[in-house]
Amino acid sequence: MAAWDKRLAGVRGVLLDISGVLYDGGEDGGAPIPGSVEAVARLKRSRLKVRFCTNESQKSRRELVGLLRRQGFDISEGEVTAPAPAASLILKERSLRPHLLVCDGVRSEFGQIDTTNPNCVVIADAGEDFSYQNMNKAFQVLMELEKPVLISLGKGRYYKETSGLMLDVGAYMKALEYACGIEAEVVGKPSPEYFQLALKEMGVEAHE
Amino acid sequence: MAAWDKRLAGVRGVLLDISGVLYDGGEDGGAPIPGSVEAVARLKRSRLKVRFCTNESQKSRRELVGLLRRQGFDISEGEVTAPAPAASLILKERSLRPHLLVCDGVRSEFGQIDTTNPNCVVIADAGEDFSYQNMNKAFQVLMELEKPVLISLGKGRYYKETSGLMLDVGAYMKALEYACGIEAEVVGKPSPEYFQLALKEMGVEAHE
Repeated sequence: MAAWDKRLAGVRGVLLDISGVLYDGGEDGGAPIPGSVEAVARLKRSRLKVRFCTNESQKSRRELVGLLRRQGFDISEGEVTAPAPAASLILKERSLRPHLLVCDGVRSEFGQIDTTNPNCVVIADAGEDFSYQNMNKAFQVLMELEKPVLISLGKGRYYKETSGLMLDVGAYMKALEYACGIEAEVVGKPSPEYFQLALKEMGVEAHE
Repeated sequence: MAAWDKRLAGVRGVLLDISGVLYDGGEDGGAPIPGSVEAVARLKRSRLKVRFCTNESQKSRRELVGLLRRQGFDISEGEVTAPAPAASLILKERSLRPHLLVCDGVRSEFGQIDTTNPNCVVIADAGEDFSYQNMNKAFQVLMELEKPVLISLGKGRYYKETSGLMLDVGAYMKALEYACGIEAEVVGKPSPEYFQLALKEMGVEAHE
């Protein structure tokens, strides 16, 4: 432990990923990774600040936290930085009205956002909702804009489920980027602004 | 006509595109572009060789030619260079067994190809068949290969239908390229090999 204490000198906070770190996803809700429930409990008893920084964009924070609490994790909604609420902040700040290509689960995170007469497109990991029809609609909305704005909740290539590898939102972001000749704005890891947001919410500076 | 004759000196053959040049597509089969039926007839009466070089990959040559003949064009299957039969040749030459993500219409062009135990993926303009499930299956096949081979019938961004702009195969090619970290082989315009094939089939050299 002496080595750990030395390495942690000056460290005030810890950012934890969720999927693949705390638990492995799956159709049945997944399962905690052995030792992770205890590790979170121990961190929370320590002097360190803890925040959960995820790219999960198929579930609302409420759904995600509910799932984790049922698995035994000590975690609340307010401790989670997720791309959908982060994007929601950005949309408000910039008066953007999105066409949403997102899962129903995460749609509630955009409940306060005006989606009439869209002037941008937001895509999240939409799974089965990435149909040709839905992709084409998002594409058509972008092509009708003078300055197309595409906001992508993450740019992951794929993720692992118990049933195998699954295409992530990044692949569909690339499809729209290519078709429209534009570059998406990524809200989520590994974007530096996203980590900054998580630190700000935790009240810690990057060097700490 | 004197100016034309001068410009055509040394020219032995003409490659004609089909969609957007001879006719405009649409759900009802589309309609000939005014003057195009007569232009094809006149070219065929001239000393010039004529060949039709298309990126159409939703229909088999048989279907495409049937549609054009009904619209009054003097055209036969043997005069058409299309990406699906071109890809079929390549698959045979390289002993590749494709997983096909293509429209039912064009599947018949791969009738002679072994598709068991696939060692590559072929994608075409699949329209509604570009579901998340079908895309994920193509992705999973590629990820299981030691050296993933992705063959894309064209790399178009989008095309125009009477109902509006439609995402083309290129967007889905980019999605798979990104997800798998690979580069697709494009069979179709604007690949030089594809134009060479059309010229070879016409019996004309590029400078002619």
